[in-house]
Amino acid sequence: MKTRLYEGKAKTVYTTDTPGELVQRFKDSATAFNAEKKAEFAGKGELNNRIASMVFRFLKARGISSHYLDTPNRRDMRIRQVTIIPLEVVTRNVVAGSLSKRLGQPEGTRLAEPIVEFYYKDDALGDPLVTEDHIRVLKAASPEDLAELRRQALQVNEALVELWAACGLDLVDFKLEFGRTADGTILLADEISPDTQRLWTVDGQRMDKDVFRRDLGDLVETYRDVHQRLVAAHPELDLGDLAEPPPAP
Amino acid sequence: MKTRLYEGKAKTVYTTDTPGELVQRFKDSATAFNAEKKAEFAGKGELNNRIASMVFRFLKARGISSHYLDTPNRRDMRIRQVTIIPLEVVTRNVVAGSLSKRLGQPEGTRLAEPIVEFYYKDDALGDPLVTEDHIRVLKAASPEDLAELRRQALQVNEALVELWAACGLDLVDFKLEFGRTADGTILLADEISPDTQRLWTVDGQRMDKDVFRRDLGDLVETYRDVHQRLVAAHPELDLGDLAEPPPAP
Repeated sequence: MKTRLYEGKAKTVYTTDTPGELVQRFKDSATAFNAEKKAEFAGKGELNNRIASMVFRFLKARGISSHYLDTPNRRDMRIRQVTIIPLEVVTRNVVAGSLSKRLGQPEGTRLAEPIVEFYYKDDALGDPLVTEDHIRVLKAASPEDLAELRRQALQVNEALVELWAACGLDLVDFKLEFGRTADGTILLADEISPDTQRLWTVDGQRMDKDVFRRDLGDLVETYRDVHQRLVAAHPELDLGDLAEPPPAP
Repeated sequence: MKTRLYEGKAKTVYTTDTPGELVQRFKDSATAFNAEKKAEFAGKGELNNRIASMVFRFLKARGISSHYLDTPNRRDMRIRQVTIIPLEVVTRNVVAGSLSKRLGQPEGTRLAEPIVEFYYKDDALGDPLVTEDHIRVLKAASPEDLAELRRQALQVNEALVELWAACGLDLVDFKLEFGRTADGTILLADEISPDTQRLWTVDGQRMDKDVFRRDLGDLVETYRDVHQRLVAAHPELDLGDLAEPPPAP
């Protein structure tokens, strides 16, 4: 880790000595409602690093590439450098959250088929929902890019539904971000963790950031439970002991 | 006019003695912000009936069908009965209003090409923006229907841009509604008036309902000006003297 490249709400990204490689360090912060609500949760950063690493490794085994390289310590993930496409790509299997409010349908309504939504990554605008026409106006991605984002999102969805089902969890919805590599390839990036997914137990208990958003219980215990379920269902993905992270530069 | 079929914010629709035909009566009310702001403007109903009738006649001459049949008096428009598709179809040539807020682009920015948006007609939900995926979930229209709505909206846009340019006005954006006839054909419906379009003079003066939304001047004088421009540019569309409307049933 050399210099800080970007400070996000839940992660900080650093350059490294290797060109084209970065390190993303998971923070213990949680934010919601466009950062209007925020708090610190000791242990959350490590849990999200472990969960996200295991998920990327699972996807890789299914032939789905991402920016993930490896997990050198408890807090850090080594990643390929990409230029992030400024869209949040949300895939939904069940109505929840903003979709419930937008369409007036109760949370928990299962969709006949998964749907994909795009939100423009812009904190000042509150990450608004955008249509393909809006994305053309914003020049955020071409129609061909959008088709590729949708294809990858649905492919990830298929794999994740199966992964979480093996953990006794229902994948309600999740947010992905993608980046472009130097040669223009669109690559899955960011993280996949309980911060970015809605995961429900069979009896509807929230096992994700809604615990924080809606004050439903102990966030770190919830994330620890998700991690344990993942290790139990896929011991081959477990990272085992990890070193303490080096001090930030 | 027999019985009241539907009471809207700016029009009331009545059945007639002829099956398949209705009358829509234009009211003097103006509403904005999902009816949070409302007021009465004597003369607005007649002006909108005259303007909308002239616009539908102009479109018909361009080969674009609508539910319009004729204009029997100052307040009423005779129309074909259709089943309204619960979508507001908004076409935009220039950034204004909600698009400016959503994308963070200044009002007045001309779009490289027109864009089409769909809003779900539901007052309780505040007529939310919806994507094609949302519309599939709502079962409001099929993908083929949406392609047809978009095609017709862009065709209407081309004609209206020319119509208003001849009146010295720039067509910034407008909202259309469509219905289905008994045989399933998708037909342009509702009204096209300064209530449903943004029209700007060359020096950016608002000649539409923004005068009411933003308290910019005399609404009826503005609509009268739009009507006079239309009569001056297209005297062949003028309705001339019209009878007083009969009392409502």
